[in-house]
Amino acid sequence: MIQPKVLKGFRDSVPSQEIQRKQVIATLEHDFSLHGFVPIDTPVLEYTEVLLGKGGGETDKQIFHFADNGGRDVALRFDLTVPFARFMAGHLNEIALPFKRFHIAKVWRGENPQKGRFREFFQCDFDIVGVDSPYADIEILGMMHSALKALGISRFTIRVAHRGLFNAFLSHIGVSEKSVEILRIVDKLRKIGKDAVREQLTQITKNSSAADAILSYINTDTSAPYSSMLDHLSTLAGGEKEHTERMKTIFSVLEELGIAEYFSIDPSITRGLDYYTGVVYETFLDDLPSIGSICSGGRYNNLASLYTKEHLPGVGSSIGLDRLLAALAELEGSQLQESSSSDVIILHQDSLLRAHYHAFATKLRAANIRCDIYLADKKLGAQFKYAEQNNIPYAILFSEQDVKQDVCTLRNLKTRTDIENLTITEVIKKLKREA
Amino acid sequence: MIQPKVLKGFRDSVPSQEIQRKQVIATLEHDFSLHGFVPIDTPVLEYTEVLLGKGGGETDKQIFHFADNGGRDVALRFDLTVPFARFMAGHLNEIALPFKRFHIAKVWRGENPQKGRFREFFQCDFDIVGVDSPYADIEILGMMHSALKALGISRFTIRVAHRGLFNAFLSHIGVSEKSVEILRIVDKLRKIGKDAVREQLTQITKNSSAADAILSYINTDTSAPYSSMLDHLSTLAGGEKEHTERMKTIFSVLEELGIAEYFSIDPSITRGLDYYTGVVYETFLDDLPSIGSICSGGRYNNLASLYTKEHLPGVGSSIGLDRLLAALAELEGSQLQESSSSDVIILHQDSLLRAHYHAFATKLRAANIRCDIYLADKKLGAQFKYAEQNNIPYAILFSEQDVKQDVCTLRNLKTRTDIENLTITEVIKKLKREA
Repeated sequence: MIQPKVLKGFRDSVPSQEIQRKQVIATLEHDFSLHGFVPIDTPVLEYTEVLLGKGGGETDKQIFHFADNGGRDVALRFDLTVPFARFMAGHLNEIALPFKRFHIAKVWRGENPQKGRFREFFQCDFDIVGVDSPYADIEILGMMHSALKALGISRFTIRVAHRGLFNAFLSHIGVSEKSVEILRIVDKLRKIGKDAVREQLTQITKNSSAADAILSYINTDTSAPYSSMLDHLSTLAGGEKEHTERMKTIFSVLEELGIAEYFSIDPSITRGLDYYTGVVYETFLDDLPSIGSICSGGRYNNLASLYTKEHLPGVGSSIGLDRLLAALAELEGSQLQESSSSDVIILHQDSLLRAHYHAFATKLRAANIRCDIYLADKKLGAQFKYAEQNNIPYAILFSEQDVKQDVCTLRNLKTRTDIENLTITEVIKKLKREA
Repeated sequence: MIQPKVLKGFRDSVPSQEIQRKQVIATLEHDFSLHGFVPIDTPVLEYTEVLLGKGGGETDKQIFHFADNGGRDVALRFDLTVPFARFMAGHLNEIALPFKRFHIAKVWRGENPQKGRFREFFQCDFDIVGVDSPYADIEILGMMHSALKALGISRFTIRVAHRGLFNAFLSHIGVSEKSVEILRIVDKLRKIGKDAVREQLTQITKNSSAADAILSYINTDTSAPYSSMLDHLSTLAGGEKEHTERMKTIFSVLEELGIAEYFSIDPSITRGLDYYTGVVYETFLDDLPSIGSICSGGRYNNLASLYTKEHLPGVGSSIGLDRLLAALAELEGSQLQESSSSDVIILHQDSLLRAHYHAFATKLRAANIRCDIYLADKKLGAQFKYAEQNNIPYAILFSEQDVKQDVCTLRNLKTRTDIENLTITEVIKKLKREA
């Protein structure tokens, strides 16, 4: 006998979980398609060299890679961004730009599993590549707002900053050569606190007044109107114009769309990675701030420079699907359906009526009602238990007399009340109203 | 520069393909849920020992396996049946039986790639485990019929046989000890022809009259009514009763459900693998017989015997999703949607109207219309080309005057005709009717 175990950091998804994940994914996919985003898919396995590029980072240690039967060094993808860059370079001739794609799929990382961290998990990325325009930035920010609303999340804040503006500020105060390290330190603000950030900034810049200036920049009072706040940041950056104007354009359109209340300018958002060059953003749930950002991203200068000379600027965002599912389970009013396997189940009492059960189920299914039939030969008690375990709200029972008169009894399994002598039309009407 | 290549036997899915695959999967998933089937998911990576069991077969050579960073021998799943068996053994306490699950996911095999064969491909499995009943067999057969109908396929034949009946026949003619080899040879009938089958059967049984008897059994005239045909097979098997009765029950209910015309008894169906013990079936498209079976399966005696002492009889079926997609592309009248990325696109003519474009798009999207906005700063010619490449049927254009009067021009991009001065309500009405 082999023990039916799964690998550390990997998980099965049982129906109650999988129904909810599929529901969330379907909602997101529908909303993406309303915004003109299209799906792509890429192989789970790629050449290690293609995925790691020059390599040398943390990723290399975490990647699942091996030699395949043909001796090729291959690896499981560790994110959806690198395969997307490779995809764009390979399909430039077939794809019309600007290209709006989404990709919801699993990725793998050999991290040490800890609470809420797994070695196999879902990512959900959406990007617009081939155009550098504030209106593409707005389209992504609007998409984020729309997706969260579609999921029934009503209280959230998308915090936006501009990496170009922050870099102009760092130049202005004379510490631009340390910008990569500074970005990473500032990115930890929420985790390690103001004092630790000041200490680390002083250490890196060897300049405590620069550290103070940075802290003052990232702690700018965000309650001011966006326009005067941006003017203030621009002044701190020595009168920066281009990025400040772009941020003003973005926020003025968000106001015009009537959704500005969901957005705020937060100069402390940096997103760590040096990959980003323009707007950057993170999304926090007002009622669950401690779970961290559930949707983050930003504008990058060149997606696929590893694989092609074609210049591909883009802007994108990524939803942490596992974190989002955990949040939805806690939030009141979110659209997470109860994971019933069916709307109704036909119970088994008489073997001679088996064909009738199937015929009746066929009609309910044709009317778009999810109908199960109890297929084993067990007593009613076991059948009710089955219905309960599967969260099925209604049962249908037939007496011999019922079959002759083409009616049935519909039992509400929660209230344990029966309605007798219902025709199939009445059953359909009743179950549709409840659904 | 790194060449953006994918591994041999692996493929990207571009939007026109991925939209269609997602549409087919959504149709199948909806139909599964109408029948009370629920989804599960399992890890892509498992212990090699768990996936291969005792091993020693063809699968061992084809499996992608390697030592992970912790030195564990791990492998990519090569089918969805073995992970399902492992899943059932591991979750017996949480899962109510009978259990009806579906699983649509990728699997990997290191076969030599050839036309239509890939190393990464989708499987779509659905099974009912925990019950050995003809009514579970009927539920699976009905599910197959319903799924194909839901996809808009109207002309197909599900050919059914019974492995128990065939084995009884082999016992009766005294060649049961060679049954595994005989099943494999008969399974090749459609590929290698009658004469080659006869030759191989004679070689295996060392008995040319047994070979003739087998050929006569599998070539039984299938135009007779199911009942007399089953009686004939029963007689050839020495008066077999149990399996014959079961097949009669199955076909009588299929008749009662009004779908018997889609099924036929075909004693030459064996499904090769010794795994199956009861009904077995394959599905052929009447208009594309040469592509082979698109949905096959059967009843097995014990799903998870490798991992648990719990006896889990079951019946299931598997749709070859890649083959099905290829077929749908060729079949007239199938429900494969044209892969337009959007219903309509708002074209860009005036930077001062950009905010208006986004506001208008927001309203169309709220009315469930898939609306793209052209985000780059290009001439109209390039924008029309973009719309054409994405199969977008309509465009919206605004003059300055339009914006003041809150109307627009709707252009049909196929007929190149304009309707001017439409309000947003009229646009929504027009596009909804077309959708």
